[in-house]
Amino acid sequence: MNIKVIAFDADDTLWVNEPFFQETEKKFYQLMEAYLPAHSVAKELFKVEVANLDIYGYGIKAYILSMIEAALHISDKTLSIDAVEKILEYGKEMLDKPIELIDGVEDTLGALYGKYKLVVATKGDLKDQHKKLHESGLGHYFHHIEVMSDKQQLDYSKMLKRLEIEPSEFLMVGNSLKSDVLPVLQIGGHGFHVPFHTTWAHEQIDHTIEHDNFRQLEKITELLSLLNL
Amino acid sequence: MNIKVIAFDADDTLWVNEPFFQETEKKFYQLMEAYLPAHSVAKELFKVEVANLDIYGYGIKAYILSMIEAALHISDKTLSIDAVEKILEYGKEMLDKPIELIDGVEDTLGALYGKYKLVVATKGDLKDQHKKLHESGLGHYFHHIEVMSDKQQLDYSKMLKRLEIEPSEFLMVGNSLKSDVLPVLQIGGHGFHVPFHTTWAHEQIDHTIEHDNFRQLEKITELLSLLNL
Repeated sequence: MNIKVIAFDADDTLWVNEPFFQETEKKFYQLMEAYLPAHSVAKELFKVEVANLDIYGYGIKAYILSMIEAALHISDKTLSIDAVEKILEYGKEMLDKPIELIDGVEDTLGALYGKYKLVVATKGDLKDQHKKLHESGLGHYFHHIEVMSDKQQLDYSKMLKRLEIEPSEFLMVGNSLKSDVLPVLQIGGHGFHVPFHTTWAHEQIDHTIEHDNFRQLEKITELLSLLNL
Repeated sequence: MNIKVIAFDADDTLWVNEPFFQETEKKFYQLMEAYLPAHSVAKELFKVEVANLDIYGYGIKAYILSMIEAALHISDKTLSIDAVEKILEYGKEMLDKPIELIDGVEDTLGALYGKYKLVVATKGDLKDQHKKLHESGLGHYFHHIEVMSDKQQLDYSKMLKRLEIEPSEFLMVGNSLKSDVLPVLQIGGHGFHVPFHTTWAHEQIDHTIEHDNFRQLEKITELLSLLNL
């Protein structure tokens, strides 16, 4: 391997994210319990979120807008204005959450720093991700942050063009096989998977991967031995 | 001048944007007219928008969330749920607007293409901006798009680091003196101002600029003679 750039996914790879969405979602189920049971609320919200991905993209602001839309729909527009206010508050609480680093992240980045060009590659909301990187205290390990509009093959190809490197010189590390690993392998890069205990339904895939450039890790610290450090 | 990279602001520099916000805002004044006269609604909305800039950032999704918050506040939470739905619709309409290029943009980019590395540098919402660039048909003129979390000196310095160029090799072209011109001049770059007929209150400054690296243009096409093309 002749890797020059290592890109890390951010949410649920460097720091905890999905549990905050799930925490907020529980509050939303409670807010809606007069109308529908939790599992049906979950289904309606997911439907609205996926339908809005094209127009809203990813991130907390998109999530909150979809939550308001789903609430109108679920309540057949009988929702109280107080409930709308609550949902706006949920959003601000999420945007205000302190950063919780995932175990081993700081040690791993410290050992890689100076040996590779390290970047953050995330499809979250730009503003949120810059804020989180800043608050994480990890900013100095990274050359810069690549906020991608999506994580499909074309998005990675564009990134490599910006970075002015060949696919074989690129390693992507992340918790989503669908977004962080598969598209990178498909364009000739290296993709290492570090699972997080919970994954958004939209990011789940149900097959196993066999590929020369693929590695399955259990913890991010295993990166060091795989790179002979 | 030894310029290598020319960065263009996007909204109201390459394509029309602010008029769509103003159009939406008029609808919002009408929606709120039972509670307050238009100029007071405008004032309340602006206050909420500026207060939320730190947490929401820029772009249409931030704008819509602030509009809902302002509506709750203006109506003292007596707003109807139909009005909330209307505001969500305004947002989707804005996100769906076809792109309207500003006069002379295409000719200017065509003449610069191949002679400079051209990038888009915008602080709008990442997803919105990628979508707009794609729909504008201008994508092929640009090496890539830099979506910045803000446009202050530090943000430009980071961009130059990513681009691996010196400030003196960088020219920023945009319609905002505050965001596109001043911070770039301050770090030693070149900043050319092309005004748009209307500017968001938050972007307005009230002094004149005198600086060797500054040029005041009336139309974007004047760029060509200034660069001796």
